This record gives sequence, C-alpha cells and structure tokens, in this order.
Amino acid sequence: MDLKIFDRMESEVRGYIRSFPVVFNKAKGSLLFDETGREYVDFFSGAGTLNYGHNNPVLKQKMIEYLETDGLVHSLDMATCAKQTFLETVDRVLLKPRNWEYKLQFTGPTGTNAVEAALKLARQVKGRSNIISFTHGFHGVSGGSLAVTANEKFRRAAGVALANTTFMPFDGYFGPDVDTIVYLEKMLDDASSGLDLPAAIIVETVQGEGGVNVASWRWLKELEKLCRRYDMLLIVDDIQVGCGRTGNFFSFETAGIRPDIITLSKSLSGFGLPMSLVLIKPELDIWKPGAHSGTFRGNNLAFVTAAQTLDSYWAKDDFARNTIRKERLVRDWLENIVHSFPGADLSVRGRGLIQGLVFEGRPELANKVVKKAFGHGLVIETSGARDEVLKILPALTIEDEILIRGLEIIERSVTEVLKNQGINAQVLKFGGIRK
Amino acid sequence: MDLKIFDRMESEVRGYIRSFPVVFNKAKGSLLFDETGREYVDFFSGAGTLNYGHNNPVLKQKMIEYLETDGLVHSLDMATCAKQTFLETVDRVLLKPRNWEYKLQFTGPTGTNAVEAALKLARQVKGRSNIISFTHGFHGVSGGSLAVTANEKFRRAAGVALANTTFMPFDGYFGPDVDTIVYLEKMLDDASSGLDLPAAIIVETVQGEGGVNVASWRWLKELEKLCRRYDMLLIVDDIQVGCGRTGNFFSFETAGIRPDIITLSKSLSGFGLPMSLVLIKPELDIWKPGAHSGTFRGNNLAFVTAAQTLDSYWAKDDFARNTIRKERLVRDWLENIVHSFPGADLSVRGRGLIQGLVFEGRPELANKVVKKAFGHGLVIETSGARDEVLKILPALTIEDEILIRGLEIIERSVTEVLKNQGINAQVLKFGGIRK
Amino acid sequence: MDLKIFDRMESEVRGYIRSFPVVFNKAKGSLLFDETGREYVDFFSGAGTLNYGHNNPVLKQKMIEYLETDGLVHSLDMATCAKQTFLETVDRVLLKPRNWEYKLQFTGPTGTNAVEAALKLARQVKGRSNIISFTHGFHGVSGGSLAVTANEKFRRAAGVALANTTFMPFDGYFGPDVDTIVYLEKMLDDASSGLDLPAAIIVETVQGEGGVNVASWRWLKELEKLCRRYDMLLIVDDIQVGCGRTGNFFSFETAGIRPDIITLSKSLSGFGLPMSLVLIKPELDIWKPGAHSGTFRGNNLAFVTAAQTLDSYWAKDDFARNTIRKERLVRDWLENIVHSFPGADLSVRGRGLIQGLVFEGRPELANKVVKKAFGHGLVIETSGARDEVLKILPALTIEDEILIRGLEIIERSVTEVLKNQGINAQVLKFGGIRK
Amino acid sequence: MDLKIFDRMESEVRGYIRSFPVVFNKAKGSLLFDETGREYVDFFSGAGTLNYGHNNPVLKQKMIEYLETDGLVHSLDMATCAKQTFLETVDRVLLKPRNWEYKLQFTGPTGTNAVEAALKLARQVKGRSNIISFTHGFHGVSGGSLAVTANEKFRRAAGVALANTTFMPFDGYFGPDVDTIVYLEKMLDDASSGLDLPAAIIVETVQGEGGVNVASWRWLKELEKLCRRYDMLLIVDDIQVGCGRTGNFFSFETAGIRPDIITLSKSLSGFGLPMSLVLIKPELDIWKPGAHSGTFRGNNLAFVTAAQTLDSYWAKDDFARNTIRKERLVRDWLENIVHSFPGADLSVRGRGLIQGLVFEGRPELANKVVKKAFGHGLVIETSGARDEVLKILPALTIEDEILIRGLEIIERSVTEVLKNQGINAQVLKFGGIRK
Repeated sequence: MDLKIFDRMESEVRGYIRSFPVVFNKAKGSLLFDETGREYVDFFSGAGTLNYGHNNPVLKQKMIEYLETDGLVHSLDMATCAKQTFLETVDRVLLKPRNWEYKLQFTGPTGTNAVEAALKLARQVKGRSNIISFTHGFHGVSGGSLAVTANEKFRRAAGVALANTTFMPFDGYFGPDVDTIVYLEKMLDDASSGLDLPAAIIVETVQGEGGVNVASWRWLKELEKLCRRYDMLLIVDDIQVGCGRTGNFFSFETAGIRPDIITLSKSLSGFGLPMSLVLIKPELDIWKPGAHSGTFRGNNLAFVTAAQTLDSYWAKDDFARNTIRKERLVRDWLENIVHSFPGADLSVRGRGLIQGLVFEGRPELANKVVKKAFGHGLVIETSGARDEVLKILPALTIEDEILIRGLEIIERSVTEVLKNQGINAQVLKFGGIRK
Repeated sequence: MDLKIFDRMESEVRGYIRSFPVVFNKAKGSLLFDETGREYVDFFSGAGTLNYGHNNPVLKQKMIEYLETDGLVHSLDMATCAKQTFLETVDRVLLKPRNWEYKLQFTGPTGTNAVEAALKLARQVKGRSNIISFTHGFHGVSGGSLAVTANEKFRRAAGVALANTTFMPFDGYFGPDVDTIVYLEKMLDDASSGLDLPAAIIVETVQGEGGVNVASWRWLKELEKLCRRYDMLLIVDDIQVGCGRTGNFFSFETAGIRPDIITLSKSLSGFGLPMSLVLIKPELDIWKPGAHSGTFRGNNLAFVTAAQTLDSYWAKDDFARNTIRKERLVRDWLENIVHSFPGADLSVRGRGLIQGLVFEGRPELANKVVKKAFGHGLVIETSGARDEVLKILPALTIEDEILIRGLEIIERSVTEVLKNQGINAQVLKFGGIRK
Repeated sequence: MDLKIFDRMESEVRGYIRSFPVVFNKAKGSLLFDETGREYVDFFSGAGTLNYGHNNPVLKQKMIEYLETDGLVHSLDMATCAKQTFLETVDRVLLKPRNWEYKLQFTGPTGTNAVEAALKLARQVKGRSNIISFTHGFHGVSGGSLAVTANEKFRRAAGVALANTTFMPFDGYFGPDVDTIVYLEKMLDDASSGLDLPAAIIVETVQGEGGVNVASWRWLKELEKLCRRYDMLLIVDDIQVGCGRTGNFFSFETAGIRPDIITLSKSLSGFGLPMSLVLIKPELDIWKPGAHSGTFRGNNLAFVTAAQTLDSYWAKDDFARNTIRKERLVRDWLENIVHSFPGADLSVRGRGLIQGLVFEGRPELANKVVKKAFGHGLVIETSGARDEVLKILPALTIEDEILIRGLEIIERSVTEVLKNQGINAQVLKFGGIRK
Repeated sequence: MDLKIFDRMESEVRGYIRSFPVVFNKAKGSLLFDETGREYVDFFSGAGTLNYGHNNPVLKQKMIEYLETDGLVHSLDMATCAKQTFLETVDRVLLKPRNWEYKLQFTGPTGTNAVEAALKLARQVKGRSNIISFTHGFHGVSGGSLAVTANEKFRRAAGVALANTTFMPFDGYFGPDVDTIVYLEKMLDDASSGLDLPAAIIVETVQGEGGVNVASWRWLKELEKLCRRYDMLLIVDDIQVGCGRTGNFFSFETAGIRPDIITLSKSLSGFGLPMSLVLIKPELDIWKPGAHSGTFRGNNLAFVTAAQTLDSYWAKDDFARNTIRKERLVRDWLENIVHSFPGADLSVRGRGLIQGLVFEGRPELANKVVKKAFGHGLVIETSGARDEVLKILPALTIEDEILIRGLEIIERSVTEVLKNQGINAQVLKFGGIRK
C-alpha cells in the first residue's frame, strides 16, 4: 500500500498512521476495510468516539435526510430546529429521568475545548486560579487543558511553563494499600502544604489515555466530599468514558455523585462527528454572553445524530445492561489470558467496555501485541505512561461474534508474543463463557 | 417563535441567538429560512465559514456519496482514501502552482486548535516563549490562543493571567500618520525595551473580529523583514480571511510574503464542517509523533468536501477574479452610503468580500442597524472593540441579485437608523454600478 | 509603654511588635532590655540571626575599629580590603579544611535574595523552569522565592499566581511510616505523573518557619541521590539553620551530602547585619557579569564581622561541640516537660539549638505559652502551619545559667497554661541534668 | 594590585570590580582610596547610595554612640527606641510639613524588596495582576521586581518567563515629537488593545539605570491622571533618585503629584547601610500582619543614621537649594563639553545631581571614557541600554572643588577619547563658572 503522499506531505506529528500503515476506505459497524479490501475488527473505536459503530445506519439515515432537506449545517450558536430537538431530547432522555438540572454549553467541537470552558467557568465562579488534576490524567492539549494533562510528551511540546495546576495521586497510584484521598485531604487541610486552594478538581472516573486506571466508587464519593468541604467545584471529564462506555450514560452514576460541571464529547454525536458539550449546574452558569466562542460550536449534523443516539439507545436501560454483559465476556477472556501466563506479570483492569490488559513488568510487549494483532486483522492500541496497557475499546454495539473474533486475535497475538519471549501458556483453557 | 427551550436549557454564554431570535430550519446558498418559512439574506456566512454558501450542491453531493458508500467518517489520524485525496489535491491545486513547499498538520477541527499548534511549534523551534500579537487581534479562546487574543471580554473569562505574549499596535492603530512598524522595530532593537525576544509574530492580514482592520501590503512586507532580521517566525492566521475571502486563496499572496506557518479553518471544508489545518515550512517540522493530538483531527467528511472546493473553485483563477468584481460592487455601494451621510462620521474599510461600514463616532448605531436589517430580512453582524463596525461578509458564491438585495437592506436600515438620530441623506443617489 | 507612634505610622503588616508590645532599647548577649529597664531572656535570636548573641563584644570592637579608620562601608561589588579578608577567611576556615570548592556570590543582603539567585542559576544551568520545594518550606517572600515557600499566608499576599514550583512532602510529612522519598521518586520516574522535570530541589535540613521539622540524614542522602539520578541540582537553603545552628557550620555536614548550591544569610555577619551569600560549585558558575545585581551586595561592615566570626568560632571545633552539649540540655528539659504532661499531647523535635515543643492537638496553647513567657521575661516565638510549635532558638553563645533561666520560664509558662486548661503535671520532676 | 583571590573565589557574576580593578580600603566624603593610597574622586556614589558621602562624620558618630551603648542592632520588626525615633523624625521632617499622610512599611533592606512589597500590595488592593512598567525601567532583580525591569540582561537570567507586566514607552522614548501618554491612554481606553487592566503603574521620575531618562513634570501629571481615570495605583520608585538626588527629598514633588505608594532605599540610611521603606496611603494599607516578612527589616543602625540625615539635611530647605546650584555647575560643564565637540553627537540630560553625558551615535565611547577617567582618578559609571550614557552621580554633599576636579577629569578623558577617534575640540573654552 502506498503511504508516500502521507510521508511526504503530512507533518511528523502524525501518529496512528504509524501503527496502522494501511489506507482505510470503508467502515461498517465494528469492521474496517483497507483499500485492498482487507477486513479489520475495530477494538479502537476512534479512541472512544464510535460507541455506536462506524456508519451506524440509523444515524446515517437521519443525517442524509437532514442534508437532503437543506437543513442548516453551520449556524454558529444561532437557533436551529436541529439544536432545538437535541435540547428537548437531552431534557427528556437524560435529565428528567434522573431528576437533574444542568445548563448546556456548546463549545468548539473538541473535547479539549469543552475542558477549556469548564476550567474557565470554575475559575470565574471561585475567583481562584489553581486546579487539581491527577497523575496520568488526560484532558486535551490546548493551553488550558494541557496544563491539567499529566503526560510529559504533551507537556513538553507546549514550549511554555504550564501553571495553575497541582497534580495529585489518582486512586491506586501508590498501590492498593495507600488511600490517596488521605494524601489530598492532608494537603488541603494544611495551610503550609504549598497547595494553593483550587477552584476545582477535574477527574476522569476511568483514565483512558492514562492506562485504563479505574477510580473506585468510594474514592469518587470521598473526592466529592472533599470538594464540598473545601469549597471547590467537581468537574468530571466524561469525554472518553461517558456516553455509555462504562454502562450507564454517565460514567459516575453508580458512585452517586453529582458533579458541578461535566464535559462530554467523542461519542456524543454517535457518528464520529465533532461535537462537545459542557453541563453546568444552573447556579454556576455565570457566563457572560459570548465570553467563550467558537466557530463550529453549533454542528447541526452532530445535533441530528446525537439526538437520535439518545432516542435509539438511552430511552430504555437495555443498552446499558447489554454493555455490562459484554464487559463480563471481555473480562473473562482477558482474565483467562492472564491466568494462562502466570509468569508474564499480566493483569486486567477496566470498567464496562474499556478494559486494559496490563504488561506491567515488560511494557514493550504491549506494542508488540498491537503489531501482531494488526497483522491478524485487529485494530487496537495501547495507553499508559509507558504504553504498557493494551486498551480494549470496542463499539458498544459490537456483535458478540465479532467481539469474540477480536478477543481471539488478542489471545493469539499475546501467545505468539510471549512465546517469542520464551513464555508459554501454562494451563489448558476451557472457554465456557465464550460460547 | 418559541425560544423558551433555549432560554431554559442553554448556558448564558449563548450569543448570536440573542441577535437573531428566530429558529432557522433551512439554508441554501445565501439564503436562510426560519421555521415560519421567512427568508433572510445571509451577510454573516457563519463568520466566514460559508464562503461557498449553505448546502453547496456539489459539495453536498460528494458528501452524501461518500456516506452512502460507507467511507470512514472518523479515523483519528489514520490514513484514509479521503485524506489521501485531500493531500493530493492540496499539492496539485495550492502548492505546486505557487512553487511552495509546506507540510500539513491536521489539528483538532477548530481554528483555535490550529493556532495552539502553531504557537507550540514556533516556541519549540525557537526555544523562546514570547509571541508578538497585535491590538484587536483575535485568534481563539482556548488557553494558548486566548493569550494572543486582544479582546478583554474573552481575556477576562480566562480566570488566570495570560502570559508569554506582547501586544503591538497593528497597522494604522494610531491613524494613517504613524508607522507602527517603526514602533515595533524600536522595541525589538532596544535591549532595554522590556520586550522579551519573541519566538514568533502572529498576525491576521485583515482583522475580522477586530473590526475589519486591513494591514497594507507594505506593512506586511516590513513585518516579514523584521521577522527575518530578529530571528522570529512569521505566523499568518488565515482562518477568517483565507480560503479566498479577500480574492486569492491565501490572503497574503499579493504582499509577496511567505509565512513560516499558516493556519486555516472556517471555510476550509467549504460546507461548514469542522476542519483545521496548519501549514508548516518543511524545515520547521520538528514535531515529535503524536505530540499534539486531537480526537477529531481526521474529519473525513470535511476532507471530501474540502478537496472538492479546491477542484471546483481554485483550479482556475476566475473565482478569485469574481470575488474582486463583487468587492468593487459592495465597496461602491458602501461608499455611496458614506457619502450620502456626510454628517454621520461613517467610513468603509475592507479587502475582498470582507468589508466594514464603520460607525466611528457613534458605535451604538451599528447594532441598531443590525436589528433593523434583521427586521428587513438580512442576517449581518458587527465587529470591533466597541461593536462599531457593520461587517459585510457574504458568501463568495453569492448571486449578484441577492448581494444587491442585501446591500439595499443595509442602505435602507442605515437610512432609517440615522433618520431616527436626526441625520438625513444629503445627496441624491444614482446607483449606476448597481444594475 | 507607649506604642502609639507605631500603631499610627507603621503599616498593618507589622508582626512581632504585636507579640512583644514593648520598646526595646538595649541588648547584650542573650539579654534584651526594654526602655523601662526590664530584662528579657532572648530565645528568639532574631529568628536565627543572632547565633553569637547581641552586640557580641569582639565583633563590635572590630566593626568600630573599621569605622574609625574610615573603611569603606558601601562599595557595591567593588573590591575592598574587608571583602578580601572575608574571602580569605572563608577559604581558610570553611572550604580548605573540608576540601571543598565553591565560588561565592554576594547577593542583595537578604536571605530571599540569595534564594532568588540560587533559583535563577539552577534554571539557567539546566534550562528548565520547574523547582521542587517541600511542604512547610520557607525560603522568603520576594517573587521567585515566594513561589517555593509553602505557607499560604505569604502566598496569598502575592496577588499573582505562583508558578514553576512543585511541592513534595517533606521527610515525615505523613508520619514516621511513610517514606516520602519513595513518593518523590515515583513522581520523577513516571513520565505521566504531571511533574515537569525540575531544574533543582531546594530544601532546608530543618524547617524553622515550617515548625522545626527535621529531615533525617538518610532522607537527605536519598534526596541527593535522586538529584544525581534525575539530573537536578540540589540547593540547600541553610539560611536559618546554617552558621552553626545545628552544631557544625553547615547543617547538612553529618549527612555527608555535597549540595550544588548553598544559601547563607541571617547569622552570617554574626552581628545582625544584613548579609547574604550563595555558594556555587565552580563548574555551575555560568553567571554573566552583572546579571544579578543589588545595591547592598557588598556590605563591608558585615564582611568585617563575618570574617571575625569564622576566626573566633570556627577555626576549631569546640564551638560546635558546645552547641551539641547545650542541645542535650535543652532537649532533656523539654522532654521532661513532655513527660510531665502525658495528657497534653506534647512532643519535642529539633536538631542542635533549634528545638520545638509541639502542641499537636491544641495549637492555640503554643501562643498562650508565648504570652505567658513574655510576661515572665522570655522572648520566644512559635512556628508551624498552625503556630503550634514553641520554637526554642537561643544564641549559640548563651551562658548555661541564662539558658536554664529561659527553660525554667518555659516550664513555668507551660505549666500555668495547661493548668488553665485543667491539665496538671503528673510526675515529680528531678532535674539532675540541669545542674 | 592583587585581585587573584577575587578572580578565584568570587562568582563570574561580579561586575563593578571589573571596571575598577583595584582594592579600595578607605573612603571619606567624595574621595576613595585604594590600598596603595591612591586617591579617587567618587562620581558613582554607590549608584546613588551615598548622597551624603562616605563615612559622613555626623552619621558615623551617631552610629558608634549607638553601638557603644549596646542599642539593639537586629530586632526583626519589634519596637526599638531607634525605630521610634526614626518614625517620629519622618513624621516631623517629611510628612507634616507637606501635609501628607503615609503609613510606613519596613521591608527587607534592599530596594528590590520594597518594590516587591509595593507590587504585592497594589495587586491585593485592586484584585488585578497586571502592572504597567516602562521601557528602560529598572526596579530590581528578584522575581517580582524583575518582571517590571526592562533590561534583557537581567530578564534572561531569570530562567523563567516573566509575566503580569506590560511595558509602555517612557516619556520621550520615541523622541520629543511623540507624546507617549497618548499611546498609553489609547491602549487603556481600547478594550481590545490586549492590555489587561493593570493594578498599578510603576515609574521612576528619572531612570537612572535606564540611561538618565528624565520624565517631564507634565508627563508625570498626565500619568497620575490616567491612574485616577482608569482606577490604577501610582507607584513611584524613588529608590535611586529620591532622598534629595534631584533637589527635593522626593523626586516628584515639583510635578505636584501624590503617588499612592512610594519606594525608598539606597541613600535612605545615608551611610550606605541596607535599608528600605515603602510609603503607603493609609487607606490602601490592607496588609495582613506578617504577610510580607524579612529577617533584616528592622536595621536599627540604619534607623539611627537615617533619622540623623533627616534632621541634618532636611529640616530646612537649604540643602535642596544647594543641590540645584551644583546641578547648574555640572550641567554647564557638560554642555560646554557637548558644544566643544559638535561632531561627536553628544548630549546632556538629567535632573539635579544625576546627569548623563550621552554618546548617542557611538555608545562604545562612554566606556572608553570610564576607563580613561579611572586612570585619571575618577570613579564613574555608564548606564543605558547600550551603556551609552556616562552617569554623573556625585554625593550631594560634595565640595565644589572636588566636584570640579571630577568634571575636569571628565573633560580631559572625553577629549582624549575623542581625539583617538579623530575628533578634536572645535571651540575655545572659557570656563567662567569653573573658577
């Protein structure tokens, strides 16, 4: 396949094309096809953007209909029918049933822009500049959100010092025996800790880019309590693991917490279209008109498909239940792999359909598995500070058989990679659940 | 018309909906329609995003075809056929004929994200943090680009101090008699001016948001010379006035300068789809793989329509010539208005199809004209620090008769507003050009 | 006593005058006298500035002689005989015997200015901006040093966000069971911890202002190792506990570490005269001539007395030994108090002649003791984030009988304060050691 | 003379020792003596620290008396008789006669520390972070004051980006025809200038380090008006040109302005002793107790001599009148030099006894004159961004004959240097004033 034009014309910043050096030309559901017609199972899903699969037919139909009737495509933040329908649907499907009230801010259609808006608002509300973020947190790479992103690869590219952020250890950062909430509380409580009282805490309930690190429900509840006690806002960045990725629409629902601000993007449109949203508790909505702008903040095509995802998948609760069922399936498969290779220092972590197979001791193996799996027809990526986590991120709508096909490729690839390292499977597998 | 759901659910940050309090449901070319079927001429064009009109039929056709064949919609920065075609078309239509070499970086699909990337790269290349920006400059509202944006409405919303930027007076800032290049040169030349040597200068050739302020060709040439002399990169932010807005595809071509970095967005896709692009001189492309990321940086629908705009409008030079012809028409009409009201302290400025009617002495009148015009069926906005400039920004593809219809509404609205202020037209109009 | 003129004319920022509301007019050794002639034992010593007592006769004699011969008092950083002698004495008494090489930088004569210079140099040397400082650390309140000072009382007064610093937990911050070096190492080792690689670590071996927190020798050694492993400079801020306060001239000698940069001030002149000094490993001395200036950086009177302190007290090692002997005496006395009131949650910590009696559970009692003690003729202060530590900081030259007089006042004051709280001494005291 | 010990042991940062490579050992009035007994006239005066000459006998006498009675030397900010006397004297001699009310804040005894305190307070009072400073301004090199210092030699040494400051052109920066107040006003008035509304403006009435640039009285008045109109505080940094340097005690008195905050240092003690002071309008004194600290903020020896300077020199107005008389003498002499060398592009500027002989076209000549003059027995320095200004800064108490001796050396040195450049004096001199 010929990638010369990319090599010649695209900036060195290009990334994923290096992992998957083919030219894709079609995609349907959980399958990708390259220009030679070769088929790939997609366990990457646009880094969580394609929860409902590629070219979801219901959404596509809606979008084409909208286009054919010359609905507005671009409208800045003027009122359109498409936007009106989206607002009504959010109210009916997401807010009313939960008895929640949030105001909606449509920002520039990138996750990072939603985070920028959230941080600005929090700072305005509290009149303070510091924000607490967590080790391994990822919130985007524009100036404001980059400051709360932990990864040095991104931070170094800034070319300026990043300020107004304090990083605290995420749940489990020092292993299961250390309660990092106690650490945070001590720093907040101590007027000489050097921690300037923050306006807000920003947190992912599961750190996708950071290595599929899962915050426990207890930890999230305690975090919310700290926010209340020390007069800080709680911002949940649900860009990667919201929109049903962990089961419920919002990733934090089981924890029983009520963030002050919520950021959404990625799978919000459901069709891979750029769209972002900030949910704000009404009493915090002190924005001045037009004070945060953005040319594409009213992506009407995205409104159309986004409203349809809510009606199609979230009006009832069977969709979330099905995600949990698939989680069980994935989890069992991955744990079986772990148990098959007791000498390989593997482990599994995740929640819902974001699961990580962790190559703790030898991080370089994760990328070998990625390459091997791609050879076998599976698109999958790693995450984590050392790229040591194989991140399983299939569409929520994936058919069981394709899901299993992908898991089989993983198992095969892991086996091959470990064999090359001299590690063989040590137990017979009997895959009852898989059938 | 019922805007209650917007009032109740949308954040106070909403802006344009306040100027145009109707619900739009269709758009075609240069016409907008609200849900009651009322028709509006569009002189706003999504703030420069719709250079080729709403729902441009050729582009729409291409996009629907792509969707119907299940082309990839979302692919992060993996290689796709749509992207490949776009790269080839840029090379063939834009770069080769100009004998230019630039690498292409696809950033998150917002203008602000392209600016963020440009600033980061400049700082990395030069190893310095300061950036020179200009009075009335607008480059976006995320952390990095907000720092180089002059307007205090946006700056105050940051909630943090914005650093690493020095503002210098734009061309004409102190009137026609003061050469602001001399000022800038003195500050650069003087080791005790307090100006930390910048990594780059970022400039718009016409400041759209800033009030349709036009940099002269000479000034731009001198600016480029200063960049060379003082080892700074020259970044032209062509997000609003590139893509043919001022005639040529790039707004700076007549000046004969060659920026080190160029940012594009808004009308790049031609269909109102979010898309952004950074052009980088090859020798400056020191990006590390993946060091600036973004979920929607490969918006394939936008690649499809963007490539088509290049083939449809930019393969020959008649499109640019037609823009200049329309500029003349608009300009004559506006100057006629100015001359009709010698007592009103009006003036005109602009380049190509971005033109401003300036209410210098009484800025509040500009917004009165906007309201009046909206009542007469024209969507148009103001810009400038005091919203004192009526900004005429029609689609480049606008039919002459619709263009004239819009200009007539402006004339009528201005006349009515001035009349209410006790100012009447003082000369007979004979509109030869208009027929 | 009449403090009206102070109340009326001096800024509200005034501090210690509020704790000791009398007008002092004489001082000799470890005794202060107010204008009524009342005598006070000084356990405060100008916060560590008067290690050799007030008006030390040998130093005073030298200084008056210098004045009487019209030696230069002020000379910026021109060469003077007084400075020459100081340089020679430092070389002979401090550096040569230790086989150390350091360059000397004379900064503005405040501790904070020495810290500013140290931080600047470290950042220049490493080309990085971040600095690691510690919880409860105090390094001054000018812009650069304030950023590495932990106490929020000082930080809030800045009126700007303080950046380029990351605070890490000091030794023992989470109690004796948590090794904070492990925490720091993990943050340094993890490329996604959010910790930008620092240019340097700045540390006090005993945190005076922070509450007499003592870093163990092992912890300091480990800290130095981390600096070497992660290419950071080690800056020991020895302003308060250097100059013999903990026994040896430098507070870190027993740890066997060799800081890259050392800051000294406070007791450096020995006579309470403003003077500061930065010691720099020769290979790090990349300063450009004049790049850090300061009007009073050549305080010749201070050179005269400082050189004399080295000759008088540091040419032999008996002075350090005597300090350790007095430490034992103070320590026993304080521990006896602790044991006398088992219900009062008291403890002792310190090193050399900086010792703290900690009112852990009821911080407000420490200040009550200060007041009571002042009433009994003892000047002593508290420190710590909650002012919970009674800080015992006598002159190193204090006579044993005056030292014991002060300790008796402490014991009496504590007893009275606790009694008022309903806590009585529970054991008989038999003070063998005290004699 | 042997400077080896300085070369070997003192940091490369050392500066003035390079210009004056001898070891001084005595000083009296306006004369310096090196260790070989050679005599030098002092036209440098410790960069403005020795307005009353070296070892002023009255002050020395006071100081020795104080020492001999064991007055407190070091007392932090506790009350002492010496401080009380100083407060009373300031009230009686400086404030009451002018009918002014100011609170006094004693900061760490460096000018930079006074500036740090002033900036902090202004930011606290206004709740804003930006400060306006001026081209060529110098206010110190610690973190906060360095940000408002213009010279890049100092700024680059910071190792961090300096923020929260906007530099504006000083009076005359663009020559006599451009009114820089108009520039500043436009930037303040324009909400899109990029200038974040400052908390304060900090200004020197004569920029000593910056090249003896003199702000006109009108400009200062206009500046004060801008401060009132735009709700900014006016801080006059009178560290170098206060204490009588320009005639009156405060340098701004003739302008008829009343700064909100005034910083003093350098010649405040009158004896070269470190001392600093911030004067604050009472209603702005919102300091919290102890929020700005500093070990040496109560330098009692300096209080003693400072109070004496007020009584000796400022209780009547003859001292100021005498300064003006000497200004005339210096000025005539310098202007005569300028006129003698019409081809040399020389000029004179200054106010009171700070005068600059400007080598505009060939800045390198100024340093040649310095070297030549030192050879002839005169200590004098240059200032300005390119070191192009020979700065004449004699003690205010200088005897006429020594003043003339110094001026003669300047004339002789200039003549010699210009002769080497092929420029000869073109008119006969007849120095009536000089006799």
